[in-house]
Amino acid sequence: MSTQKPYRPRPISGFPEWLPEQRAIELKWIDSIRQHFERHGFCSIETPSVETLDVLLVKGETEKEIYTINRLQADDHTDDARLALHYDLTVPFARYVAQHFNELVFPFKRYQIQRCWRGERPQAGRYREFCQCDIDIVDVERASLHFDAEIPTIVYDALRSLEVTDFYIGISNRKILHGYYQGLGIDDVASVIRIVDKYDKIGQEGVLTMLQSQLGQSEKLSRQCTEIAHIRTPDMTFVDAVKALGVQSNLLDQGLDELAFLMDQLDDLPRGVILADMAIARGWDYYTGTVYEGWLNEFPSIGTIVAGGRYDDLASSFIKKKLPGVGITIGLTRILGALLPENRLELGPKCPTHVLVILPNEEQRKNVVHTANLLRQRGFNTETYHEPAKLSHQLRYASKKGIPYVWFPPFDENGDHEVKDMVSRAQVSANPETWTPGHNV
Amino acid sequence: MSTQKPYRPRPISGFPEWLPEQRAIELKWIDSIRQHFERHGFCSIETPSVETLDVLLVKGETEKEIYTINRLQADDHTDDARLALHYDLTVPFARYVAQHFNELVFPFKRYQIQRCWRGERPQAGRYREFCQCDIDIVDVERASLHFDAEIPTIVYDALRSLEVTDFYIGISNRKILHGYYQGLGIDDVASVIRIVDKYDKIGQEGVLTMLQSQLGQSEKLSRQCTEIAHIRTPDMTFVDAVKALGVQSNLLDQGLDELAFLMDQLDDLPRGVILADMAIARGWDYYTGTVYEGWLNEFPSIGTIVAGGRYDDLASSFIKKKLPGVGITIGLTRILGALLPENRLELGPKCPTHVLVILPNEEQRKNVVHTANLLRQRGFNTETYHEPAKLSHQLRYASKKGIPYVWFPPFDENGDHEVKDMVSRAQVSANPETWTPGHNV
Repeated sequence: MSTQKPYRPRPISGFPEWLPEQRAIELKWIDSIRQHFERHGFCSIETPSVETLDVLLVKGETEKEIYTINRLQADDHTDDARLALHYDLTVPFARYVAQHFNELVFPFKRYQIQRCWRGERPQAGRYREFCQCDIDIVDVERASLHFDAEIPTIVYDALRSLEVTDFYIGISNRKILHGYYQGLGIDDVASVIRIVDKYDKIGQEGVLTMLQSQLGQSEKLSRQCTEIAHIRTPDMTFVDAVKALGVQSNLLDQGLDELAFLMDQLDDLPRGVILADMAIARGWDYYTGTVYEGWLNEFPSIGTIVAGGRYDDLASSFIKKKLPGVGITIGLTRILGALLPENRLELGPKCPTHVLVILPNEEQRKNVVHTANLLRQRGFNTETYHEPAKLSHQLRYASKKGIPYVWFPPFDENGDHEVKDMVSRAQVSANPETWTPGHNV
Repeated sequence: MSTQKPYRPRPISGFPEWLPEQRAIELKWIDSIRQHFERHGFCSIETPSVETLDVLLVKGETEKEIYTINRLQADDHTDDARLALHYDLTVPFARYVAQHFNELVFPFKRYQIQRCWRGERPQAGRYREFCQCDIDIVDVERASLHFDAEIPTIVYDALRSLEVTDFYIGISNRKILHGYYQGLGIDDVASVIRIVDKYDKIGQEGVLTMLQSQLGQSEKLSRQCTEIAHIRTPDMTFVDAVKALGVQSNLLDQGLDELAFLMDQLDDLPRGVILADMAIARGWDYYTGTVYEGWLNEFPSIGTIVAGGRYDDLASSFIKKKLPGVGITIGLTRILGALLPENRLELGPKCPTHVLVILPNEEQRKNVVHTANLLRQRGFNTETYHEPAKLSHQLRYASKKGIPYVWFPPFDENGDHEVKDMVSRAQVSANPETWTPGHNV
């Protein structure tokens, strides 16, 4: 033991870390999400954790706080491009598609489950390091609007498999708000959208005040600007509701048509899971059509748990091709971070072990190892106890780790193997080559 | 399309990125390694990508180049501890065990498959970002030497499952070199070991020269220092070979006893897979007993593909407990990085899709989606073609992506489904609720 006073490690704010029984849930979730993505033909890719700053800032300054990386002992940086940790998986994906264009087959459908980093002030639902699960479909020249309908279906299935049921996915189309505000004669549409996007946080009155004070709009125009944001319907009725506002715009009509098409395609999902929601403005610059935002009904304060949309022009920053795409992110860390502290999830096991083989004495070690290997070959996760400690001690180890079965090798050559069910406490004879557990392991 | 000249992205040196068919191998390998780790009862944990610099430097300055992270738009850093990306998974694990000590059950066995970062100059086998697969066992006060034998067995099984067969794992014990040099009357043992560690790179003559020029040793003593490093045996004969050098040291004897115990325990593995190798010195400061180094026989220049050892004193930097442990790392990226460019591995599929369902015309879309969902529910990864393109076009898509089966929905209500095997080109009637593929998918 060191005689120095130990350095007491503490959690780093914004960088979550789970205990094994929590991590078991996260891993199970990732496996399930991945399976759903593959079920629909999406391939896995990963990109490096870093990109050059040029790539990350290709769409102009981002509001997101970017972490750059620097060598601690660097004597010179002259040959290094400035590198930074990616803040999402969409920009790296666009760069990937452009860079490997000739080696990919289109429409290219990929999933990507990786960590992202943002140097934001930690708060509820905000992490500095977090895991995102992305799917995107990118095609050449034109990407079918059917892809926009497929994406939320996959996410719906994936979330349901995690037993996350109390959520909805709001959908809109950027052309709707853009067209509506253009139809109202507004020039600086982007500023209006930026303010209306705060609707959830500051409410209607707050938005009205900001539109008037910051943009010098009349009260009447400001009210017209917010009227559309109230419209949220589980069906096609949003079309008539928007049209009733009496604003004329071809862009608006196009957006309504596209969204109506999606709502029709998604009609088979349970009512209320998909909402046409005119309030969605989404900050990212690169969305040009469909936009998605998913929320946990019980935890609105943590923000969106699902986000995405259609981009017509993202990869074209990197290649002289038009490569439109549509994609979505599941914010895995944000969901887990909301549900785990609330004890809404049944914790996983502390270890994956199905069977602990008891070591009665040192002479038996070879037999014990042999028995364990037999069980492993049959697919059971198996540990041997590492030393011939008292039986009560070995049983306590199994109990504390939640290992469901304890195996007793025979005492002599003619004896039987026995296995103890740690739940029912029943102990019976068993053959390691044929044994099947009474309950699922 | 943007009218700006596109920014042409290029690979970032030292940060590997794989195509989908390469990533498919990596993912298969990670799944297999993980399954082997779980088969032996190791639980999954992950730690944040960053630690405070205090933690990473807790054993004093490291030779490894550390990447710190800094917020690009930071106005002040006053409340931020200095954060840096971890350069291995062992130090974060020691911190994890100390921090969560009261919530863990010991002996604690965990695996951890994560990226690490080192700001080193890229060269063969060296990456700045790489994936490591670690297992460690940590116990309180005392950790059984049997753990030291279990660890290479698990790694042997895991590597074999990847069809990486041409490798060996060298094992030594730090007490052997330390005791041997102490027995030779050398005070500055660390400096001698640092030089002898270069044996692989600069050869015996180089080491002899350095020992004399840098440490002022006599030629005779220098020769004695290197004599032990020649000893490498697939069996217990190393004990007599070392003893024949005639150096007396209790520490040396203890190291030989421990290593002999391991070689005996590992006797069941095929001869030549495990070598007692006295030349292993390993750079890390924290190893105190057993040390492991694995090599690909065909690619010695890329360095160790497996590395690890026993540490008695690592977590004690963070907690007033003695928490000895033993662990090992599989350098996944390094192995893939050696074998992929040499075409030593059969590439994976470009996508995970088993079946592409043809979309003959827009009217059939609902049927096509229904058929695809049936196949998905039965466990087949299934895509539908997104638009009613020409049949040849849809078939070419399946062919280019390597999708093994193409499904034709019935032309009318009384028609049959048909499925085409893209390998044999045979096309037969099939029922989506009962169909089984002719070859494995």
